[in-house]
Amino acid sequence: MIYFDNSATTKPLDEVAKLVSEDLQNDELWGNPGSLHELGTSAYKAYIKAKEDIASCFSIREQELVFTSCATESANTAINGFLKRNKRNGRTIISTKTEHRATLSVLEKLSDEGFNVIYLNVGPDGKPDLEQLASVIDGDTSLLCFTHVNNETGAILPLKEIIEIKNSKNRNTAIYIDFVQSAGKLKIDLRELGIELASFSAHKFHGLKGSGLLYIKNGIRIDPFILGGGQQNGMRSGTESLYLSRSTALALKLSQTDIDEHLKIVSEINSYLRSELVKRKATILSPEDALPYVLNVSFEGFESETMLHCLERYNIYVSTISACSSKTKKISYVLEAMGVDRKLATNAVRLSFSRFNTMDEAKIFIEKIDEIYQLFALR
Amino acid sequence: MIYFDNSATTKPLDEVAKLVSEDLQNDELWGNPGSLHELGTSAYKAYIKAKEDIASCFSIREQELVFTSCATESANTAINGFLKRNKRNGRTIISTKTEHRATLSVLEKLSDEGFNVIYLNVGPDGKPDLEQLASVIDGDTSLLCFTHVNNETGAILPLKEIIEIKNSKNRNTAIYIDFVQSAGKLKIDLRELGIELASFSAHKFHGLKGSGLLYIKNGIRIDPFILGGGQQNGMRSGTESLYLSRSTALALKLSQTDIDEHLKIVSEINSYLRSELVKRKATILSPEDALPYVLNVSFEGFESETMLHCLERYNIYVSTISACSSKTKKISYVLEAMGVDRKLATNAVRLSFSRFNTMDEAKIFIEKIDEIYQLFALR
Repeated sequence: MIYFDNSATTKPLDEVAKLVSEDLQNDELWGNPGSLHELGTSAYKAYIKAKEDIASCFSIREQELVFTSCATESANTAINGFLKRNKRNGRTIISTKTEHRATLSVLEKLSDEGFNVIYLNVGPDGKPDLEQLASVIDGDTSLLCFTHVNNETGAILPLKEIIEIKNSKNRNTAIYIDFVQSAGKLKIDLRELGIELASFSAHKFHGLKGSGLLYIKNGIRIDPFILGGGQQNGMRSGTESLYLSRSTALALKLSQTDIDEHLKIVSEINSYLRSELVKRKATILSPEDALPYVLNVSFEGFESETMLHCLERYNIYVSTISACSSKTKKISYVLEAMGVDRKLATNAVRLSFSRFNTMDEAKIFIEKIDEIYQLFALR
Repeated sequence: MIYFDNSATTKPLDEVAKLVSEDLQNDELWGNPGSLHELGTSAYKAYIKAKEDIASCFSIREQELVFTSCATESANTAINGFLKRNKRNGRTIISTKTEHRATLSVLEKLSDEGFNVIYLNVGPDGKPDLEQLASVIDGDTSLLCFTHVNNETGAILPLKEIIEIKNSKNRNTAIYIDFVQSAGKLKIDLRELGIELASFSAHKFHGLKGSGLLYIKNGIRIDPFILGGGQQNGMRSGTESLYLSRSTALALKLSQTDIDEHLKIVSEINSYLRSELVKRKATILSPEDALPYVLNVSFEGFESETMLHCLERYNIYVSTISACSSKTKKISYVLEAMGVDRKLATNAVRLSFSRFNTMDEAKIFIEKIDEIYQLFALR
């Protein structure tokens, strides 16, 4: 099997599987962290320890971290919660049409509720128009919502420039960033960046599905989203899950080891594929400076889904468009917003890598592409 | 260890631990159920199978079931979602002050937003005042929110009478029931009951924390709560977790085996404890007809927390009040709403059982209570 669909989800690490299996046998970890007895307090301590481990990977404090059930919940909580709680900060949100559905859906709802949502133009490089940003940001701009690395193209957000523009125009404007595709692949120093809100998903860095993270910068107040027993300082009610939090902490920690070395290897795989694919009538849709973990490519003569199923016959797994919306939409709204030619977009396939992919897999991939074109040409 | 705190959380079953460990090694189960390739479709099939297995335990269809991250999320989704989507159904909600914090917090928020929330009186038997219900329910009553079995006292809701009253007054009024404490302990036939919305939590029936269920009766429309990629027919966005859904299905299924036999054994344990405890200057606060899995008892001369820590020294684990709020509140609002004497409530301890508790444990418990009283008397 060659799995080039790591932006959709990743295989849980063996170390994660082992930890969860052991934890499920551990009598000190199944108590309710809210219970006052020893079984509760030992669970609570392990829970906080997991938060601390994660916080240290992002250079933040554990109190700034909230465990959620997924990045979608994190996005809902962050965006809704900030806008509702900080009404005096303004009623305008600036974003783009290339965000994940989790962000776009919340923005649509907020727009229905009377908030003013401005979507910046996005260039063929996948980046938001920064001149436009500078011109539209004003005293009413409460929040900027962007994605660090686009899940369909790998386009990297010019985050530092955005922060500079923001600070020069309105220091009170807060920033929410979706780090789902970059966490575990790039070093993320939230303290240095100084942004207010961020989201992460464990299953995108070889952790378990069902575990997300929300960063809320110290001093920032947002309305909680899920209300109830008041867990996590009232920011996210619901009984805390040790299996999820501990496995997320381990997966993240392991992703940080040799993170630059892994990036280098994946860059080589990506460069090889780019150079071989363009020889084969394929068009690379990912920007040149995209994160190499994602490679969006359009295959002449093959609609996305056809190519996906052709590759599947060789046990090669890729994606048409963002997995979350695979079943509901035929053409990528991200590519559309970037102004990609409709015909090219119709044939777009996303290859997305993990640190476990190899150059040998890339070579087999190219061989199979040749076979597919050959079979197709014979008909 | 004697664990009498099963209403706070339960120990995951060995079978559940085994399943999760195996699943984490299974290459057919870690794909994203939203992916179009085989890895996605095999995950999706297993996910739907888990839903079907759960649905059959409640005599419903899998399409009526939504996986959530916890019962708190289920409550937030059900109550918010029904009221917001069905505004023409009315703006009045009827509930009680003895609901779980998840329900009460949502009701408070809805009240702030202009909904009319009526809290029925609750008797010393823990039951809502049905005459009052009959008198206040009217054409504006959109939703009734009740708990099947109270988590602090075991008080059982007279659900069939409530449904009858509701139907005689306003057939359009919908009913939301929190089944967190009864699922896995009592047979629940949602089809027969005919209610509209219900919530469940896996970790209360020996499944994993991080997994909840929401039942939405076929034909009932509610607004989704977590917005994004449109998973679960748009009712709950976020990548589906096979580990959580499959372990929940297994835990629920295993709880159904010999469910009546288990109830009988726990009834005997409960009766034994009641009869022995009243001989020891303790006052039983649970109603006589409560579900025997919960026994709320007030120990003369010991504040709740003191007794909890005394018992802890013998590795006996109990709870003061609902675990979710253990750290935030000193006196049980449930007992307060039932009109329990403040002094008795201050000394209340909740024992809560699982099908794995034994009469031997109950006997040791009584011995230790005697020891504690003796030690205390010596000082």
